[in-house]
Amino acid sequence: MALITLTTDFGINDPYVATMKGVILSIDPGATIVDICHTIEPQNIAQAAFLLSTTYNYFPQGTIHVVVVDPGVGTERKALLLITPQAFFVAPDNGVLSYIVDEASSEIEAIALTNPRFWLYPVSDTFHGRDIFAPVAAYLSLGFPPHEFGDPLSSITTVPISRPQMGEEGVLIGHILHIDHFGNLITDIKSEDLPRGRIFIEVRGHIIDDLSRSYEEDEELLAIMGSSGRLEVSVRTGNAAKFLRTKMGDEVKVGINKSSLRGR
Amino acid sequence: MALITLTTDFGINDPYVATMKGVILSIDPGATIVDICHTIEPQNIAQAAFLLSTTYNYFPQGTIHVVVVDPGVGTERKALLLITPQAFFVAPDNGVLSYIVDEASSEIEAIALTNPRFWLYPVSDTFHGRDIFAPVAAYLSLGFPPHEFGDPLSSITTVPISRPQMGEEGVLIGHILHIDHFGNLITDIKSEDLPRGRIFIEVRGHIIDDLSRSYEEDEELLAIMGSSGRLEVSVRTGNAAKFLRTKMGDEVKVGINKSSLRGR
Amino acid sequence: MALITLTTDFGINDPYVATMKGVILSIDPGATIVDICHTIEPQNIAQAAFLLSTTYNYFPQGTIHVVVVDPGVGTERKALLLITPQAFFVAPDNGVLSYIVDEASSEIEAIALTNPRFWLYPVSDTFHGRDIFAPVAAYLSLGFPPHEFGDPLSSITTVPISRPQMGEEGVLIGHILHIDHFGNLITDIKSEDLPRGRIFIEVRGHIIDDLSRSYEEDEELLAIMGSSGRLEVSVRTGNAAKFLRTKMGDEVKVGINKSSLRGR
Repeated sequence: MALITLTTDFGINDPYVATMKGVILSIDPGATIVDICHTIEPQNIAQAAFLLSTTYNYFPQGTIHVVVVDPGVGTERKALLLITPQAFFVAPDNGVLSYIVDEASSEIEAIALTNPRFWLYPVSDTFHGRDIFAPVAAYLSLGFPPHEFGDPLSSITTVPISRPQMGEEGVLIGHILHIDHFGNLITDIKSEDLPRGRIFIEVRGHIIDDLSRSYEEDEELLAIMGSSGRLEVSVRTGNAAKFLRTKMGDEVKVGINKSSLRGR
Repeated sequence: MALITLTTDFGINDPYVATMKGVILSIDPGATIVDICHTIEPQNIAQAAFLLSTTYNYFPQGTIHVVVVDPGVGTERKALLLITPQAFFVAPDNGVLSYIVDEASSEIEAIALTNPRFWLYPVSDTFHGRDIFAPVAAYLSLGFPPHEFGDPLSSITTVPISRPQMGEEGVLIGHILHIDHFGNLITDIKSEDLPRGRIFIEVRGHIIDDLSRSYEEDEELLAIMGSSGRLEVSVRTGNAAKFLRTKMGDEVKVGINKSSLRGR
Repeated sequence: MALITLTTDFGINDPYVATMKGVILSIDPGATIVDICHTIEPQNIAQAAFLLSTTYNYFPQGTIHVVVVDPGVGTERKALLLITPQAFFVAPDNGVLSYIVDEASSEIEAIALTNPRFWLYPVSDTFHGRDIFAPVAAYLSLGFPPHEFGDPLSSITTVPISRPQMGEEGVLIGHILHIDHFGNLITDIKSEDLPRGRIFIEVRGHIIDDLSRSYEEDEELLAIMGSSGRLEVSVRTGNAAKFLRTKMGDEVKVGINKSSLRGR
């Protein structure tokens, strides 16, 4: 049974997403379609790239992920099919798959979607989600071999991936990648980036003493290794983003806690 | 495999839509259900009618479209099943299918949903989506013949459909039908309404010189033939509705551009 | 065919819900998944409990309802599987199933989710929706017997359920349990709580003369027996919550109308 996911910046008030589903089910009536997120900030390629990276690994092998955040629709930007050992990705070639490429082994393959046989006609200049990406995903789910969709691509477009940097005195300088619905601040700092030993975390002048294990410890402001394997800053039953007045891109620093007693 | 779509003004914070899905799947466990839109402005029949018209054609033939925007629920307004060569529509008889009727050939048939055998009991006075429309759609998807659901209707209720008018000096006066999530202004002007030759488009005192082909041309303010086959006004990587401070119903004028040089 | 529903406070901007669906479909590719509501107010257990109670009965017998409103994730709070003659419920043991327990007959059974065989590894401290509740629901949908998921629980946590009280002079004092998308005020007063005869309803100083039958009667402010079997206060084609400036928890009083003529 074929599984297709959709990630777009189409919002929830228009029938654009439903139209893509109609196109997919017209070609492959047996496809299962799962919405990942449709409230990507309009044309925010980096946000879509990051959010996709936090979820695609939890889908069955062979899932077809369609991403339509596409400010360049109708221009010369390429459309592509990316194949990894884990999944298929159908998207504009604008960097929205940057994390996928970054995390994948060398066994990935990219194909430019140049074969017009798999498109829906007339192809509009403004909605390739409907006219190219949806039908390509549906034909792929029916089992058409990837190489039939177009020519191999030797390189694909990527956007810079935010990573923490080592600052002075051994302090790691990370950044807020995403603020979730609960106001949790998700950073670009992964477990393997953290210094060994007891640490402190600094955000907007607030100092957090070491990592917590869950959201219900005593401290109001917590740092935690989140479910995506990244350092997160949270407020217990509150909203850290509002409490700290942070925004995406703000710095989060991590250093070795030299004081020997907890709770000082 | 039966496909049922849902369009409502129920919003996303209540379980009303889920309850309809529960009712459908209790009757036809094999039905595939697709959400079209649940954020229709409360009781805005014209908006639901328009949005449905932009998407239903992309679904497989025989799809059952359920529309519940129903300010008259519990009153004498009829409930109906409309059958076209393309699809089935289950909705209150309040104009929400006006575009469907307008676009359909003469081969359409309407049936009043009068047969109580297909309803869910007790039938509430306020939620026919759950008690009449959902079960009727589910039994229809199981293959019950349309004429079993009730008596033929000789006419159905329609609301006026917005169309452009010819004004003075050959200027076409259209209207904004819908403002989408990106702030694009979707008008009631179709390709066949446009004058031949190079045109200008005027909205709120701004003049746009001719049509563009995609969202990434140079001009900040663009006019484009959108994916729904209608003239749209957009701002490149921005929000035309905010930029122009327009609202639904505002006029968009189109005339022949008499100046001979582009970019003047 | 297994049916699994999801109710969370995860909102619609993050991929958390999609990740749970990916986990479920990785284990049971044939599961049908229905979203009930993901915009429960963050960590509002009472709201989730109430909304679930209004919809679960409309799903097929044997449906698996997963509820993840879980402020205590990562602490000692238990995770549970509740089995009723109607359905299965997979949730944290924090009161989110209070209405289910209250409405169920004595034939219910609770199991603590202690068997790690059905979890996803590594189990995070912050996202048991992904690592415990989703995989347990999926294995349950595959047919694993409930007792394999853990040990019987002799009692489960409940939160107080709002009920009307009898006040002075035979006036029933109820409360607003929920304000829906249309601004309808849904109260804790059920049909069987209402006094016999012609009644008046009082909210925030406004007096409503008896119950109406639908939303399109003449009066601007209406009281109606809503689709959930509870007394609701509405404004015809308007928003009662805004009109009356009410909030959840506010009182709604019902008494016998002693005046003999309608429409005074």
